[in-house]
Amino acid sequence: MLRCLKCGRTYEDFKIMCKCGGALEYIGEKRGNFESLLRKEFLDIRRYLSFLPLKEEFLPRLTTPITPIVERKIEGVNVFFKLEYLMPSGSFKDRGTYVTIAKLKEEGISEVTLDSSGNAALSLALFAKSEGIKAHIFIPKHTSEGKKRLLRLLGVEVHEVEGSRMEVHEKARSFLEGIYISHWYNPYFLEGTKTVAYEVYEQIGSVDYALAPTGSGTLFLGLYKGFKELETLEGTKTPRMIAVQGKGYESLCKMSEEKSRLAEGIAIPEPPRREQMRKALEESNGICISVGDKEITDAIEDLISMGFLVEPTAATAYAAFKLLLEEGYFEKGAKVLILLTGSGLKNI
Amino acid sequence: MLRCLKCGRTYEDFKIMCKCGGALEYIGEKRGNFESLLRKEFLDIRRYLSFLPLKEEFLPRLTTPITPIVERKIEGVNVFFKLEYLMPSGSFKDRGTYVTIAKLKEEGISEVTLDSSGNAALSLALFAKSEGIKAHIFIPKHTSEGKKRLLRLLGVEVHEVEGSRMEVHEKARSFLEGIYISHWYNPYFLEGTKTVAYEVYEQIGSVDYALAPTGSGTLFLGLYKGFKELETLEGTKTPRMIAVQGKGYESLCKMSEEKSRLAEGIAIPEPPRREQMRKALEESNGICISVGDKEITDAIEDLISMGFLVEPTAATAYAAFKLLLEEGYFEKGAKVLILLTGSGLKNI
Repeated sequence: MLRCLKCGRTYEDFKIMCKCGGALEYIGEKRGNFESLLRKEFLDIRRYLSFLPLKEEFLPRLTTPITPIVERKIEGVNVFFKLEYLMPSGSFKDRGTYVTIAKLKEEGISEVTLDSSGNAALSLALFAKSEGIKAHIFIPKHTSEGKKRLLRLLGVEVHEVEGSRMEVHEKARSFLEGIYISHWYNPYFLEGTKTVAYEVYEQIGSVDYALAPTGSGTLFLGLYKGFKELETLEGTKTPRMIAVQGKGYESLCKMSEEKSRLAEGIAIPEPPRREQMRKALEESNGICISVGDKEITDAIEDLISMGFLVEPTAATAYAAFKLLLEEGYFEKGAKVLILLTGSGLKNI
Repeated sequence: MLRCLKCGRTYEDFKIMCKCGGALEYIGEKRGNFESLLRKEFLDIRRYLSFLPLKEEFLPRLTTPITPIVERKIEGVNVFFKLEYLMPSGSFKDRGTYVTIAKLKEEGISEVTLDSSGNAALSLALFAKSEGIKAHIFIPKHTSEGKKRLLRLLGVEVHEVEGSRMEVHEKARSFLEGIYISHWYNPYFLEGTKTVAYEVYEQIGSVDYALAPTGSGTLFLGLYKGFKELETLEGTKTPRMIAVQGKGYESLCKMSEEKSRLAEGIAIPEPPRREQMRKALEESNGICISVGDKEITDAIEDLISMGFLVEPTAATAYAAFKLLLEEGYFEKGAKVLILLTGSGLKNI
């Protein structure tokens, strides 16, 4: 069942957004034993099929791996980097896209519209191409030529919009040809990203803190949802959720005057799921923290030293970790999860 | 134990190359039940630790994922694409590097030399950086600026050599500062790449044919070794091995006049393990086939349609599959494994 976070209306059928314009939440908690619900014959996202609202006959053929976790001890804190950038399109977005595409196939939908200039667009373009689904992507006119070329190579109809990111969003929303599947609203997207939490639990058990780059909240909220489900299933403790934002684009913490250029993937001034994110922060006793370009640049260098080729937005979570470490926020021996969200191979 | 493929000399200790200049083979077959030897607490390469000549305390921190397999039915043949490009450095080479780095750590070696201009160099640079091992990389002078920049970013000492690929190799070999760990010779590298076969077996059982891009044979021979070990352990049938080469660089099949520009990753005229590869082809009742730039270009387009962002060398195996399919080489219902070896994100 889907429920609107704004007006409370519920839906039994496929729906991306509520009639009232609010964002939807998928409700359908699984009961049982986590271990015995795992589909152990699979060593990819299908391992967690029992927890997803999907029919097996409609699964996309392209699949996502269980991403590795690399452990580092940093000043007495146990840091676990999850390599979410090792995905078919180079970012964690593929998890959300995987579930979305399965729902589109189930519904027989063959033409869709999305607004994004970055990883979500590339992810949708790749999965849509591999399933023969036509995709319209609305992007800001100033998007780099490289990205446009890649999208066109994937057979996407690219619509360039003069104006701000919010204007691009409005244009896409009012476009009539494909079903609008904005990942900002799409409730199935979060069902995909919640699989990160299951993997983490299988790989290293429960953690004390989780840091995720947070713009529209597709990762932050999915991750939180997965942890909450594990709490129900396994009685594990949900970690304190740490939402990391770019300076000048703080939707959850105090707005900075500096405007980060580097954290472009999370530069979303008015995310529709803001209240849902605030609730997750509050419930998990978490915090929001923002980082600027100087911190991001330093973090990229550190991450490369550890063997992680990531893009600037992905480095924000580690930049935030360093700030918090300096403040003494983490107790010695704490288990801290840091999500590395997007590949740096695209622009090195 | 290591044994020289040329003179038969054996070694108990760490060694990259035989005194006689021949290539070494690691011998140490595991007996027992495959399933019960798996380290199931791991969902990455460590799952296969029991089959690797490694000590757990020296493992690299950076690890490699179990890469996904995507199934497609193509003209009655069951094709299984293994996404070997979803690796920390963007290619399957990370498997061989993983095992090599573990051996270097065990031996306390902190400075190494390699010749390569491509994926092997990037892989070594990344893992070496993350372990604080100094790496000298010898590359042809005409290597692209982008690659040189990336290697320097990873802290590698880049040595540019005027001359052919074989001259670069000779220069590296005679360099005195770091231990020379050429992946062409290095027997531990094949111990790493053999894990591909274990993963395939866990994911889809045994296959009838396996196609791999083949230059120096680091993937082809590792894969074959893994399958042979599974034959011993599980009584499974080893597939017919299909070595795919670039036109003009056929070390295993008839030399073409056309010289492939696109298959640069396998453009190795005189691979030291040529005889070992010939033996694998013969024993497995396999074949060698070569492809040209026209076929590679078409194959890239097909692969992108299926959602695989790969580099040209990685497309050779699918190009070869198409040629063989047209000839009627595969029986209906056959299980065919195609290895997609390197990421296209680097140069799209």
